Amino acid sequence: MNTGELVELGQQLRVDSVRAAGAAGSGHPTSSMSAADLMAVLLANHFRYDFDRPEHPGNDRFVLSKGHASPLLYSAYKAAGAVDDEELLTFRKLGSRLEGHPTPRKLPWVETATGSLGQGLPVGVGIALSGKRLDRTGYRVWVLCGDSELAEGSVWEAAEHAGHEHLDNLTAIVDVNRLGQRGPTRHGHDLDAYARRFQAFGWHTVEVDGHDVDAVDRAYGEAESTKGQPTAILARTLKGKGVADVEDREGLHGKPLKNADDAIEELGGVRDLRVQVHEPPAARMLHAVRAGHLELPRWDTGEEVATRDAYGQALTALGTGRGDVVALDGEVGDSTRSEFFAKEHPDRYFECYIAEQQMVAAAVGLAARGWVPYAATFAAFLTRAYDFVRMASISGAGINLVGSHAGVAIGQDGPSQMGLEDLAMMRAVHGSTVLYPCDANQTAHLVASMAGLDGIRYLRTGRGESPVIYGPDEDFPIGGSKVLRFSQSDRLTVVAAGVTVHEALKAAEALDQEGIRVRVVDLYSVKPVDRATLRQAAEDTGCLLTVEDHREEGGLGDAVLDAFADGRPVPRLVRLAVRTMPGSASPEEQLHAAGIDAESIAAAGRLLVEQAIVP
Amino acid sequence: MNTGELVELGQQLRVDSVRAAGAAGSGHPTSSMSAADLMAVLLANHFRYDFDRPEHPGNDRFVLSKGHASPLLYSAYKAAGAVDDEELLTFRKLGSRLEGHPTPRKLPWVETATGSLGQGLPVGVGIALSGKRLDRTGYRVWVLCGDSELAEGSVWEAAEHAGHEHLDNLTAIVDVNRLGQRGPTRHGHDLDAYARRFQAFGWHTVEVDGHDVDAVDRAYGEAESTKGQPTAILARTLKGKGVADVEDREGLHGKPLKNADDAIEELGGVRDLRVQVHEPPAARMLHAVRAGHLELPRWDTGEEVATRDAYGQALTALGTGRGDVVALDGEVGDSTRSEFFAKEHPDRYFECYIAEQQMVAAAVGLAARGWVPYAATFAAFLTRAYDFVRMASISGAGINLVGSHAGVAIGQDGPSQMGLEDLAMMRAVHGSTVLYPCDANQTAHLVASMAGLDGIRYLRTGRGESPVIYGPDEDFPIGGSKVLRFSQSDRLTVVAAGVTVHEALKAAEALDQEGIRVRVVDLYSVKPVDRATLRQAAEDTGCLLTVEDHREEGGLGDAVLDAFADGRPVPRLVRLAVRTMPGSASPEEQLHAAGIDAESIAAAGRLLVEQAIVP
Repeated sequence: MNTGELVELGQQLRVDSVRAAGAAGSGHPTSSMSAADLMAVLLANHFRYDFDRPEHPGNDRFVLSKGHASPLLYSAYKAAGAVDDEELLTFRKLGSRLEGHPTPRKLPWVETATGSLGQGLPVGVGIALSGKRLDRTGYRVWVLCGDSELAEGSVWEAAEHAGHEHLDNLTAIVDVNRLGQRGPTRHGHDLDAYARRFQAFGWHTVEVDGHDVDAVDRAYGEAESTKGQPTAILARTLKGKGVADVEDREGLHGKPLKNADDAIEELGGVRDLRVQVHEPPAARMLHAVRAGHLELPRWDTGEEVATRDAYGQALTALGTGRGDVVALDGEVGDSTRSEFFAKEHPDRYFECYIAEQQMVAAAVGLAARGWVPYAATFAAFLTRAYDFVRMASISGAGINLVGSHAGVAIGQDGPSQMGLEDLAMMRAVHGSTVLYPCDANQTAHLVASMAGLDGIRYLRTGRGESPVIYGPDEDFPIGGSKVLRFSQSDRLTVVAAGVTVHEALKAAEALDQEGIRVRVVDLYSVKPVDRATLRQAAEDTGCLLTVEDHREEGGLGDAVLDAFADGRPVPRLVRLAVRTMPGSASPEEQLHAAGIDAESIAAAGRLLVEQAIVP
Repeated sequence: MNTGELVELGQQLRVDSVRAAGAAGSGHPTSSMSAADLMAVLLANHFRYDFDRPEHPGNDRFVLSKGHASPLLYSAYKAAGAVDDEELLTFRKLGSRLEGHPTPRKLPWVETATGSLGQGLPVGVGIALSGKRLDRTGYRVWVLCGDSELAEGSVWEAAEHAGHEHLDNLTAIVDVNRLGQRGPTRHGHDLDAYARRFQAFGWHTVEVDGHDVDAVDRAYGEAESTKGQPTAILARTLKGKGVADVEDREGLHGKPLKNADDAIEELGGVRDLRVQVHEPPAARMLHAVRAGHLELPRWDTGEEVATRDAYGQALTALGTGRGDVVALDGEVGDSTRSEFFAKEHPDRYFECYIAEQQMVAAAVGLAARGWVPYAATFAAFLTRAYDFVRMASISGAGINLVGSHAGVAIGQDGPSQMGLEDLAMMRAVHGSTVLYPCDANQTAHLVASMAGLDGIRYLRTGRGESPVIYGPDEDFPIGGSKVLRFSQSDRLTVVAAGVTVHEALKAAEALDQEGIRVRVVDLYSVKPVDRATLRQAAEDTGCLLTVEDHREEGGLGDAVLDAFADGRPVPRLVRLAVRTMPGSASPEEQLHAAGIDAESIAAAGRLLVEQAIVP
């Protein structure tokens, strides 16, 4: 499009943003208006995309990091012919695809859910990594950021990663409208302040008047022709641009325009320009055709193996069997054992250094391009990326997260390194799967099963060695459990997972000596939970004792309730979990101090079968 | 100390680090050895500290951000006479104060727990803010960072904040030993790479050979004399410095030296130098003496008030009544209503922009200096800072966190803005208090009570208006609840909190019309939970129905189990919660779609009293 047409298109996007927010009675038109010219030039002259084939491997990728500017995005979809005017005006209404913040579950052209700021660029880095190192179909990744969100550290994790990886297929377009939600940003219209920061991280930068369509056009061209570096376009804009009542004024964030009709007239009225978006280049997906034979590692029962070791070996085997599996590390691959995969499949291994937010975001970006990512760090440090996990579930992203060094069982390193909240955190994520194996063969099977699930899948692994108790051909369905001890005269069921399975078996043995028969359930699938087995155990034994190397809130003990929260009779329950703040000590001392070792289980079990209160 | 003495002291710190890790059989001696000279010069010539009076308001503050280098810290304590050699060798043993990573709960000289990387500098920023804007006793804050941890975005949130606030009382000492846990860092010994980044964020930088004690001494002097900017000292060092077997070699992270005796000999043997640390200047605390009269805001029953509004007003009143209360915002103060406090008490208000990790870290730093911080953002966005909350609980920090815009009840903005995992996340934190008020007077009382509690306190507030149902003089003890409907013939107890209390009351009214008497419990204290009331309700009515605007995992429904997890009989239970992924819709439509409105409660309640299974 030429200058005049671009200006008109920008005004159309403004008008449609005002109309959509007006119809909804809520939304962020002023944040859309600042970026309208940036969007118009991109859509008309640079973006290569087939809206009828969003899965086209040659398509450019666009991420609206400032997700609240969704009216602008939807107005652009309308200009491209992907949604019609009627649908545009369903914005933010019950049942509409056009939600307050865009999500890929609803709209096929959205790469990732946004709305929590500072996430679009890290996810864009993941997509750009895919384009550069895996897909190699030549697409570009365009991320429209707000200026306020540059205060998020995750943006600088992304800047560091993209700069270091020379992602010249990535462009960050920063809409510097100088106004955040509650007032002016830290740096106002000081484009240099942002440029200095991006440059320090190895980016090429362009400063531009974001309302001068020709200048913006040249800036995009400069980004396209810059080699070896990602480009940040820092665009000086005005919030609410084009309507005097709201332009560059505070206190109007997230509010529809009061006099929408006047505003639309001031903007030149409703238009119906249609953009012929450039076709993507012909390209084909690589990973769809690469599939080998899956041969999982096998261990003999009685061997002593850490589940983290089993994870590393199983993932490596999975990578051999499936060409679409990729692995990500947060600079602890020697601990999580992701390094096993790195040695075998270096081309599909992504070192993210100590930047857990970027690691999870990269996984989301890679999943958006069809890869099956496994991202691992210490379970404790996945807490760093919880907002990214939450948003990934809104995206419907299929990612595998692995947290090693679970619980007090790690021993001497102390509480900062102990994953003690991870089960609670991951269970609360919508549609998640939470797995916690106790031996090597079980781990291997679960690692393979995870690849085929929907949504967020979490695997918890342990640091120390534990005995292999299952044969290598045993089956471990998701949502299942294993009954490890069983008799018709069981008076108590102990439900355990991971390290506490072994403690539970020892406790059951001890109680058996005293004439108390105990059922032991290995609840390796913490979510979804095996309701049938738990209900049968409750019926048979009358009481349940849960034991977990995790805080008492939100973990295994609470998960068991899932089998009984529908109004049926509930068995008597006791929950053993980590209730104190651990210090440094050996793994055995830690389990004992936390009251989750065999001795503690046996003591609580005795009281429970005697119908006494367990203190 | 002169050059020769400093060199000797550095060697002593190395030797003691090797000895401590050797005695423990674990730990990070090589990470300690790289920074030994940096620590020696600081301790002997620049740090001003009274080890007998860690609470001295004039004391400098030291934060070991690379917390795994704890042997170095403890060796420095020994050199300063604060611990003896015998205690040094208890490192990492059960019961020792000298844990794998330092924590203030155990050691009075530690400002904040570290061990999750990238947290020391943000907390240091909080302490420096306190020194600059509140305490004004002239202390300096020294933070020893690793180079690997500079990949964490939180470090750049801190860099941005400190640069913008001109914190010239803050010095970051970066031990650039070029080796992370699993191998080389991204930038190796490229000090310029780090310098460019810090400079871009407004810092003064000094590049130095970290083993040249005179150069290090000059660098500290330069930091002390630099005005208007924080200083980053980028020190080129070698991991394992001083022992040829381990110096600058990969694969030795977190491992005691194999030949400790030879290493000690190579380092010149055991020494017993004692450092006379400089005295801090005379100073007194300001906030201890400032206390006014607390007059909480009052509302009449029947008024319609959002709990977030009540929060803002109550916090403002609390700030008037207590001179030690401070508030922090993540650039959403107009939404959380923290801005009310800002208008009244601008000197005690800290705008952290959109950087939730830095916001929570600043709260931890301010709490370490004796202030009572209230940090607020959307409940959804506190997930961004979960690792900081977790570490704050290990510190034993007393901080108040407030999450607004809870649940689907926010309406049109959609799932990215809805706090739906926050109760699970906060409940799982050790020693936390979790509060969820349903009306304005209740909110005000809880805001005031929070200030006096230990540990992490979380308050969940709502966006929309709700009716005031309690009088302003009602009492709301922590760990209590309110029985809102009660009769001797109740057949069902509905347990609710926040927005669902009002739905529960409507449902109870409807069921009453049908002849089903319903007890309604307002469980505003989600943790600790009111066990007595819940047990009585179970005994009286036989079944409980919980209803919450939160995911079904880890929230109110699970909290109720706390009253019954000691082996006593458990009532029949049904848990209503948000089980779907919401889109955009009005608040009323959202509550209905999620199945947590009055109609859904009444329907489930009917089935439950009929002893039917509730689907």
